[in-house]
Amino acid sequence: MTIRTVVFGLGSMGYGIAKSLLNSELTVRGIDVNLDAENRFRADGGSTSERIDSISNASIVISVVLNAAQTEDVLFGESGVADTMKQGAVFISCATVAPDFARNMEARLEKLGVLFLDAPISGGSVKAASGQLTVMASGSATAFKVARPALDAMAERVFELGNSAGAGSAMKVVNQLLAGVHIAAAAEAMTFGISQGIDAAKTLEVISECAGTSWMFENRGAHIAKGDYTPHSAVDIFVKDLGIVSDVARGSKFSAPLTAAALQQFVAASGAGFGREDDAAVAKIYARNASLELPGDS
Amino acid sequence: MTIRTVVFGLGSMGYGIAKSLLNSELTVRGIDVNLDAENRFRADGGSTSERIDSISNASIVISVVLNAAQTEDVLFGESGVADTMKQGAVFISCATVAPDFARNMEARLEKLGVLFLDAPISGGSVKAASGQLTVMASGSATAFKVARPALDAMAERVFELGNSAGAGSAMKVVNQLLAGVHIAAAAEAMTFGISQGIDAAKTLEVISECAGTSWMFENRGAHIAKGDYTPHSAVDIFVKDLGIVSDVARGSKFSAPLTAAALQQFVAASGAGFGREDDAAVAKIYARNASLELPGDS
Repeated sequence: MTIRTVVFGLGSMGYGIAKSLLNSELTVRGIDVNLDAENRFRADGGSTSERIDSISNASIVISVVLNAAQTEDVLFGESGVADTMKQGAVFISCATVAPDFARNMEARLEKLGVLFLDAPISGGSVKAASGQLTVMASGSATAFKVARPALDAMAERVFELGNSAGAGSAMKVVNQLLAGVHIAAAAEAMTFGISQGIDAAKTLEVISECAGTSWMFENRGAHIAKGDYTPHSAVDIFVKDLGIVSDVARGSKFSAPLTAAALQQFVAASGAGFGREDDAAVAKIYARNASLELPGDS
Repeated sequence: MTIRTVVFGLGSMGYGIAKSLLNSELTVRGIDVNLDAENRFRADGGSTSERIDSISNASIVISVVLNAAQTEDVLFGESGVADTMKQGAVFISCATVAPDFARNMEARLEKLGVLFLDAPISGGSVKAASGQLTVMASGSATAFKVARPALDAMAERVFELGNSAGAGSAMKVVNQLLAGVHIAAAAEAMTFGISQGIDAAKTLEVISECAGTSWMFENRGAHIAKGDYTPHSAVDIFVKDLGIVSDVARGSKFSAPLTAAALQQFVAASGAGFGREDDAAVAKIYARNASLELPGDS
């Protein structure tokens, strides 16, 4: 039996997921507001036919859009798919959102007979393209079952975190707390090292071998040491994601001082004009505030 | 030729170093204010003879004490060794101190014809005992040369960071910035997860596979998930070390908001009575502030 899937959002993550599904011989229709992305997907062997037709036939719709507002728009906006999806089909939501938002989407779709899988992703665009993402998922057993062919195609590892929406998003928010704090900490440490006369490349070399290291330190520290701020993931993503952490924490009366401090550094980086640069550009705020030169300056 | 060494401080790190030197067939005298530690070292095959004699014959004196004040006391206190050490011998200083303090010790010893190696260590007591520490060292070529037999015995890796004191301590301070921020971030993330209904052990399992991980998250996160606060390294160590980071940063007019936020959490943990528990006990502050239960509570 042909499994028909639709992927909303052909950005760096969505495009990779759509390609991974194609490689697994699922039928994939890719939809994006950017027609260039759709044309590229068609050239790569995908389909981009008109929406209504593809949606009503699909058993799996995957949403890889930017945030909660876009997710809600895909489902319930002017040309939203919630009413068009067939009974028993599953909507896999990959954006980083607050757990309450995910629970709300699940409840609204349940009334329409449509399944919801709360399934944020981690791993970056390279792993998306190779079908090796990590998925932090929660939802009903039926939602997992219907979604399984797509999950198998896009992910190396699927964590099943609970039988209803919310737990997947909660875990993703925990991950973003750490990721954001660690990027800002990497920037703080490398620029502090510069203030003490230590070359950034030397800090990267030594600390990577010590207990102070982190996944983000090694990854984003390399960007700072090279002075390369080509956006793999932009500053504004962490303005958004640490904003979600901060909102969820405050809503739970949970005091999160490191999150707060890191968020302000990303807000400053965005305010200073670096919002679309790589998130490692948060180092530029530290450098400016201490009148330091970074690698690549001058 | 017999190489005579002296180790000041037979705590968890110093004892391991002294044993590693013994295993390398150097002559080692161990000195500690705690006579139990000296007795234990003698039982293990080391020597603990009276100070003056051992110091004046040694070519290498290693100081593995707690902080700058104790280091200065070992060298220049009432029974300080600076005047007793022989010309051309080297003093290897392993405590975490401010770079300026290390430069000051080097300058004062230089006047006495004694070499100084600024050589903070990383790796913990297990690696100390097996001679596999990482050393972040700076000093003159002669200081490195005289110190080499001891460095070879105690360390798996020696980073040579410059030809005078200061650079070694600066790198160690950078490492402590990251280590301290990452421990507090691990506590913030795991307790935040608990506030969202996620089990701490599940957070540890999932995040260890994601981009949010760090060396400290995996190490100290396990302590939190088990509710085990047996002090491998105590809260008060980070009150001290992030205090050094904070002081050095302020002295260089370097704004370090994550350091500041993390330091306050460790200060609160110490103030609340957890100063001698494992540094992962900073999680107890987060839990109390959000009325949450940690693993091991109740």
